[in-house]
Amino acid sequence: MKKQTTFITTLLLSVSLSGFSQDNDSTVIRKFFNEALGKGKSYEWLRELTTKIGPRLSGSEGAKKAVSWGENLLKSGGYDKVFLQDVMVPHWVRGKKEEGYILNGKQKVTVPLVALGGSIATPEKGITAEVIEVKTFQELRDLGKEKCQGKIIFFNRPMDATKINTFEAYGQAGDQRRSGANEASKMGAIGVIIRSLSSTENDFPHTGSMQYATGVPLIPAAALSTNAATLLNKTLKENPNLKFYFRQSCESLPDAPSHNVVAEIKGSEKPEEIIVVGGHLDSWDLAQGAHDDGTGIAQSMEVLRLFKTLGIRPKHTLRVVLFMNEENGNRGGMKYADLAKANNEKHIFAMESDNGGFTPRGFGIQGGSADIVVKLQGFKTLLSPYGLNEIERGSGGVDIGPLAPQGTVLVGFKPDPQRYFEYHHASNDRFETVNQRELEMGAASMAAMIYLIDKNF
Amino acid sequence: MKKQTTFITTLLLSVSLSGFSQDNDSTVIRKFFNEALGKGKSYEWLRELTTKIGPRLSGSEGAKKAVSWGENLLKSGGYDKVFLQDVMVPHWVRGKKEEGYILNGKQKVTVPLVALGGSIATPEKGITAEVIEVKTFQELRDLGKEKCQGKIIFFNRPMDATKINTFEAYGQAGDQRRSGANEASKMGAIGVIIRSLSSTENDFPHTGSMQYATGVPLIPAAALSTNAATLLNKTLKENPNLKFYFRQSCESLPDAPSHNVVAEIKGSEKPEEIIVVGGHLDSWDLAQGAHDDGTGIAQSMEVLRLFKTLGIRPKHTLRVVLFMNEENGNRGGMKYADLAKANNEKHIFAMESDNGGFTPRGFGIQGGSADIVVKLQGFKTLLSPYGLNEIERGSGGVDIGPLAPQGTVLVGFKPDPQRYFEYHHASNDRFETVNQRELEMGAASMAAMIYLIDKNF
Repeated sequence: MKKQTTFITTLLLSVSLSGFSQDNDSTVIRKFFNEALGKGKSYEWLRELTTKIGPRLSGSEGAKKAVSWGENLLKSGGYDKVFLQDVMVPHWVRGKKEEGYILNGKQKVTVPLVALGGSIATPEKGITAEVIEVKTFQELRDLGKEKCQGKIIFFNRPMDATKINTFEAYGQAGDQRRSGANEASKMGAIGVIIRSLSSTENDFPHTGSMQYATGVPLIPAAALSTNAATLLNKTLKENPNLKFYFRQSCESLPDAPSHNVVAEIKGSEKPEEIIVVGGHLDSWDLAQGAHDDGTGIAQSMEVLRLFKTLGIRPKHTLRVVLFMNEENGNRGGMKYADLAKANNEKHIFAMESDNGGFTPRGFGIQGGSADIVVKLQGFKTLLSPYGLNEIERGSGGVDIGPLAPQGTVLVGFKPDPQRYFEYHHASNDRFETVNQRELEMGAASMAAMIYLIDKNF
Repeated sequence: MKKQTTFITTLLLSVSLSGFSQDNDSTVIRKFFNEALGKGKSYEWLRELTTKIGPRLSGSEGAKKAVSWGENLLKSGGYDKVFLQDVMVPHWVRGKKEEGYILNGKQKVTVPLVALGGSIATPEKGITAEVIEVKTFQELRDLGKEKCQGKIIFFNRPMDATKINTFEAYGQAGDQRRSGANEASKMGAIGVIIRSLSSTENDFPHTGSMQYATGVPLIPAAALSTNAATLLNKTLKENPNLKFYFRQSCESLPDAPSHNVVAEIKGSEKPEEIIVVGGHLDSWDLAQGAHDDGTGIAQSMEVLRLFKTLGIRPKHTLRVVLFMNEENGNRGGMKYADLAKANNEKHIFAMESDNGGFTPRGFGIQGGSADIVVKLQGFKTLLSPYGLNEIERGSGGVDIGPLAPQGTVLVGFKPDPQRYFEYHHASNDRFETVNQRELEMGAASMAAMIYLIDKNF
């Protein structure tokens, strides 16, 4: 009898404790949202980064300013430590604004076009050639070398609109941008133009990185706006012998010195175990880099501020990292992981926000055991009142990716994906496209998830 | 033994049938999304309604054009029936553009201000008076009549930013707009200005309906932009004796004839049982009425088109209703319900989209038994791959509200609520603020839910 009483007492105690703990957790989470939505800083920080500093491609003056801005801002936050990590980054510059025309008989139609990041320039006078339109690499190969020799290859496979998750559609279309120049070069082409990787029909060309393969002649690569790609497709149907002209003046300069910016709150119980939250400080040169990734930077810094302001001391050391060079090299992410290893640091979790500042949906989990996934999914009860229903296997993020081999569990913050590729890597990725409430909801969501991770691991 | 075999066979059969049915349902739902996202019509319809017709307040030329547009468009859809329902609607007109100033000593600061819908005009020369700022009706009453006599009352209670659902914050702040004039009039005030009901700090004043109580002197009522309200609050702190001037020329004309527009696909099995889907065709006069409620109109018409185009014949009769006069009277909604009753029609479900064209989140269920709610929540397995995780008790919608006493279960389509009150009832509620994918996802979500309701009830 005694045993059973004890058992029941223990049971009741554990139920009531767990009840208490749930209440307590939900109160803390509510506080994160109250602070972020009522008195949040992320929106003003984003305004500064995007409108006062603006474009900040690795190696640029903008990137330099962004590093100082982040460092100063974090230093004013009263955290336990703020420091820079040195990292050498690629230094690609666009040069003079590009030009592109469809030359259809006597008609010359100007089209919006931008060089892809990493591309070489055209000759100073540009290149003019007939155009071969294809949708896939296979289609290109099937044409044979003779047909492609001396031509401009036009990759025109749109992002699949029927994919619910636009990132999936982006993934499926991405080979055209990343490797199109190599595939075209192998076939003897002299240049490549691609349909912008965008979910929208408009006049903004979207840049993004491409890489040259070794052993293949380098040819220039550019992106047309989706509207221009549609026009070119239509015009080609009327006149398959039309010519296309483009000129771009971009070049790769020697690697430049830059930095990751790091700040931390020391853990109260396990200071040697680290939880990271971050985004990337660099952006493409065309844009203010609002959704990519000013929002991730502003939200990550806000997470640290929320803990500090609300007086919530994490058990583990909580670090914000403003990574450099996600867009064209990921040198910052790799350097961070290298240093973590060299310094024998133990990173248990890393969270990244680099999918835009849209309304929060949940988190993607990369790495970690099935048990860990189940445990994180158990937080849904506490998080779903804030619209965080999607906690599933998924990708963590580019910057935190290099931590994976160290056993770090990666958590990607997942905002709603419908609008992201309207702005991604294009000049319309501007501050005014970010909704303040959506941004702030994201910051609070990230803080809530980190709080639960910190408490339960 | 035989009995058990039968039992197991039945069990297996039922499992496999249910498995089949799930597969089949998920295929149909996938088709709705493929069609809406790839070849959808809702975005072009929204463009026509908002940019070619534009504002369409009840009784206006715009409203008349919208009725013809909807009727013609539905007639071209090849449905079983298209018809109009006559309804007399309020006819309020804004008249000459309003003017408002803060008169602070010698300073005269112009502020963006609009008359509330239903308000009377000021005298032709406007009114000038000292301002009493309050946050609540109680605070106003506590001041006493003497202090309020001859003054302009300024209701300045913002929407609570910490509410996750902005509609809750809107609900809590709405008394200022709806009844502020009556409360102020009772205290002897000569005019009322309110802080716009908006979640954003900007320069767009938001209108919306107000009603005069009987037996209380009528005084004019207007809304200031949130920025202007903040400025007035600040200026009042510096100079409590400042004066405020406003002039508005609005008036209520005699009721005007108008119409609901209805189209239907006849049910294959239970044609006498009706499922309605709709939104409202009218908008405020200031705006293109994109999110309120052009998106609901375009989505509802798209639902019918999706069934027709995909060859999915509903068991029940499926009706789209473009309701007239949701904004200032709900005469269309009431007329529809009156006619349903008079004609002995049985409406089993009614769905409304009137919360904006944002990314889909789920549905709110009003009326119906607890069993029905559980049954609808059972659809989550099929709907959550499309981000539809929130199926809960909630409000159906204003237009379909009058069907409730007839036992109709009301289903409100719930898009994400974070951005709605940035645009609601203001001149920035424009076509370009609607994202095509979000709009189309909503239409497909509505079609999917109606498909499951039609099949399972």
